[in-house]
Amino acid sequence: MTFKSHMNQALAEARAAADRGEVPVGAVIVSPQGDVVAAAGNRTREWNDPTAHAEIVALRAACAEAGTERLVGYDLYVTLEPCAMCAAALAAARIGRIYYGASDPKSGGVAHGARVFSHPQAHHRPEVYDGIAAQECEQVLKEFFALRRGATKSGES
Amino acid sequence: MTFKSHMNQALAEARAAADRGEVPVGAVIVSPQGDVVAAAGNRTREWNDPTAHAEIVALRAACAEAGTERLVGYDLYVTLEPCAMCAAALAAARIGRIYYGASDPKSGGVAHGARVFSHPQAHHRPEVYDGIAAQECEQVLKEFFALRRGATKSGES
Repeated sequence: MTFKSHMNQALAEARAAADRGEVPVGAVIVSPQGDVVAAAGNRTREWNDPTAHAEIVALRAACAEAGTERLVGYDLYVTLEPCAMCAAALAAARIGRIYYGASDPKSGGVAHGARVFSHPQAHHRPEVYDGIAAQECEQVLKEFFALRRGATKSGES
Repeated sequence: MTFKSHMNQALAEARAAADRGEVPVGAVIVSPQGDVVAAAGNRTREWNDPTAHAEIVALRAACAEAGTERLVGYDLYVTLEPCAMCAAALAAARIGRIYYGASDPKSGGVAHGARVFSHPQAHHRPEVYDGIAAQECEQVLKEFFALRRGATKSGES
C-alpha cells in the first residue's frame, strides 16, 4: 500500500460521508507495520457530536483497538487540512505523520489560523505532508456544497 | 446556583478524576435555563482515548442529551484553561461562555499557545472568564503531581 492508496481509502470515506449528508471528509490511520487500523468519515450530524470529525473518529477507534492513548509511529491520512481540534488531538496522541489533501484556509488549524504545531507550547509536532491528491479531495467537497446550495435554492423557490 | 457552585461541582469532578489516577481536571455544562446538563472528569487513561479531556466528555454528553451538535447559550465551567483541542471543540459547538479556573501556560490553548479564539478564522468566540477559584483548581493539580512524583521516587528507591 502506498500513500496514494491510503488517500484513496480516505477519499472513499469522504464520499460515504457525503452520502450520509455529512460534510465529506475522510481519514485513515496506518500502523507502523503499514496496516490500516482505522478508517472513518465525518459523523457530526448523525451522532450529534461536534467532535466527530473524521480524524477524531479514526483516532478514537485506533486508540481503542491498540489499547493506548498514544499512537507513536502511526500515520494519519485525511482528505482535508485538520482543524485546530483535530490537530491538537493528533498531537496529544503523538501521531507520527499527517498526510492531508485539500488546504482549508477557512477552518484549517495546521497551515492556517491557530497553526497548532507552530507554537513553543506544542509538545509534539508530527511530520506534515500537504497537497496529497488535493484536487480530488477538493472536488468531493465542492460537489457536496454545490449540490447542497442547489437543494436549498430549489427548496426556496 | 451561582458560578461558584458550578465551579465547585467541576472541582469535585477533578478530585474524582485524581482518585481514578487521571490528571485532575473537571468540567460542567450548564443550560441556558441554568441546569447542569453534564459533568465530567478527565478519562484519557481509563478509556485509552486522548480526546477524553473533561471538556470533551462533558460536551459530547450534553450534545447527545440535547440531540444537537450545537450548544448555543450554554456555559462551560472547567478547572483548567482548555487546551487547543478543547477550545476548538467548544467553538465548533458554539458554546456561549467559558469559565475556567487555573491558567495553563504549558498546554493551554485559550490564553496561551494556539490561542484558538484569537484568529480571524475563529468562527465563534465564546465569552471567556478566567481565574474562577483558580487557587483551589491549581491546588488539586499540584497535589496530584506531587503525589505522583513521590510515588515514582519511592518506586525508584
